[in-house]
Amino acid sequence: MQRKPLGIAVVAPANRLDPELASRVMAITARLYPEQVRVHVHPQCHMSWGHFAGEDQARAAAFVEVANDPAYGAVWFARGGYGSCRIAQAVLPQLTEAARHKMYLGYSDMGTLLAALYANKFPHVAHGPMPTDIAREDGDAAIRRALAFLVDRDPKALEPSLAGAKHVAFNIKTLGCLLGTPLQPDLSGHVLMLEDVSEYMYAIDRALFHITSNPAIRLVAGIKLGRCSQIPANDPDFGQSEVEVVQHWCQKSGIPYLGRADIGHDSNNKIVPFGEMLVA
Amino acid sequence: MQRKPLGIAVVAPANRLDPELASRVMAITARLYPEQVRVHVHPQCHMSWGHFAGEDQARAAAFVEVANDPAYGAVWFARGGYGSCRIAQAVLPQLTEAARHKMYLGYSDMGTLLAALYANKFPHVAHGPMPTDIAREDGDAAIRRALAFLVDRDPKALEPSLAGAKHVAFNIKTLGCLLGTPLQPDLSGHVLMLEDVSEYMYAIDRALFHITSNPAIRLVAGIKLGRCSQIPANDPDFGQSEVEVVQHWCQKSGIPYLGRADIGHDSNNKIVPFGEMLVA
Repeated sequence: MQRKPLGIAVVAPANRLDPELASRVMAITARLYPEQVRVHVHPQCHMSWGHFAGEDQARAAAFVEVANDPAYGAVWFARGGYGSCRIAQAVLPQLTEAARHKMYLGYSDMGTLLAALYANKFPHVAHGPMPTDIAREDGDAAIRRALAFLVDRDPKALEPSLAGAKHVAFNIKTLGCLLGTPLQPDLSGHVLMLEDVSEYMYAIDRALFHITSNPAIRLVAGIKLGRCSQIPANDPDFGQSEVEVVQHWCQKSGIPYLGRADIGHDSNNKIVPFGEMLVA
Repeated sequence: MQRKPLGIAVVAPANRLDPELASRVMAITARLYPEQVRVHVHPQCHMSWGHFAGEDQARAAAFVEVANDPAYGAVWFARGGYGSCRIAQAVLPQLTEAARHKMYLGYSDMGTLLAALYANKFPHVAHGPMPTDIAREDGDAAIRRALAFLVDRDPKALEPSLAGAKHVAFNIKTLGCLLGTPLQPDLSGHVLMLEDVSEYMYAIDRALFHITSNPAIRLVAGIKLGRCSQIPANDPDFGQSEVEVVQHWCQKSGIPYLGRADIGHDSNNKIVPFGEMLVA
């Protein structure tokens, strides 16, 4: 039986995607899924406005356009960086029923949009690799994993400890900047997976104070720590590892520390669908 | 008429103070106020525990000791860095009535303790230079200003625009990490002065999203922007200055933007007593 091809739309709510990286992702997809997938890289991905992939209005419009278009079964965020908080509140009221019937995949700064969609009961929201990850060492593996998830909901693409609980995954800094705002998601009863990149240990410690001191966050079922990579040297040495830091704040806040999660800013980043597993 | 000498206690709730810098501050003080001031640099200032000036317990104990000691009319925080959020909630219930009758002066990471004290109705809490500022270019001026404020409440030491309104001043990142926690101060009706150092423009933009999206912060009378110094280069260029960023978020949030404030991580950092001016 022939399935209708899956339309995947790539947009960039934060930073610009290098066209050469986009081409490589298109080539891998064409090789692996010649009939089953059509990838549309929205031209907005290559726009430029200072730090951002186009002005706020352009980024918001591109996202709303593909989210509301029933031709696409998935919105695949091109890249993190910084910028989705500048459009999240503007796009939400523009989304139609069609937007609820597709998968949204990304991580890092895209956590702001994932949180906003999840808070608005969008059922298919997932933390996982993005097209820009093709540039990483062994980046092909990240792209193949994302496609296996988007096309087939391949269980091998998933973070391996998801069974039997509601999960979410966030970049530490991204979640921190949602606390106390209308975009803060209700995570009660969820296992909260956290990861970060390029942050000093003191900043990780401060962010964990922030996250674990929030009364609503204290209702999570527990915290699992993903990878914290490229931590710049602290002077003097911070004296505690990221595991010790998370354990410290979990202990102080009464949140169970549940061990490690297989997520991070690297090509091994496994996929974490938000909420309970909804396998098609 | 002879006044009783003012006892000033120096403690370090975050990072360690270099003993040589402490000596220079003591020397300036002895020269300017030979009879009027006694400075006590608590030995905890020179302790070391990884990143911090001693373990959490040691830093908390030193702060509680000098805050509760009626021999001191002022607690002068030695230095910022990072660490006061690790002790703020522990020290509050240990403070006695004597702790309410003195001035607390510091900035940067110390904003967490200033916020905690102000939220607990401590009447004399101020944002301004610390002993470590002696190491800055023209650092003597910062020390002289702090002493003129602590000893004589010299109006020339104050930020020049304080008349006629309640004010507070915070480091942008420090305030951001209090949002949504029990330490978030009620700033309704206050002019909120903000400053930062060594943060990327994208991180300043993200922090302003965070601060101005908080419903309680939206009750401030307005925001004044201090100096944002040592901003690392953004790649690509962010495309907006810190003034444009603050104006953008003020405009989006409906918070009045009230112009610049004469505060920052430099020797020109003027003093901002929290709340309404209480000049002795």
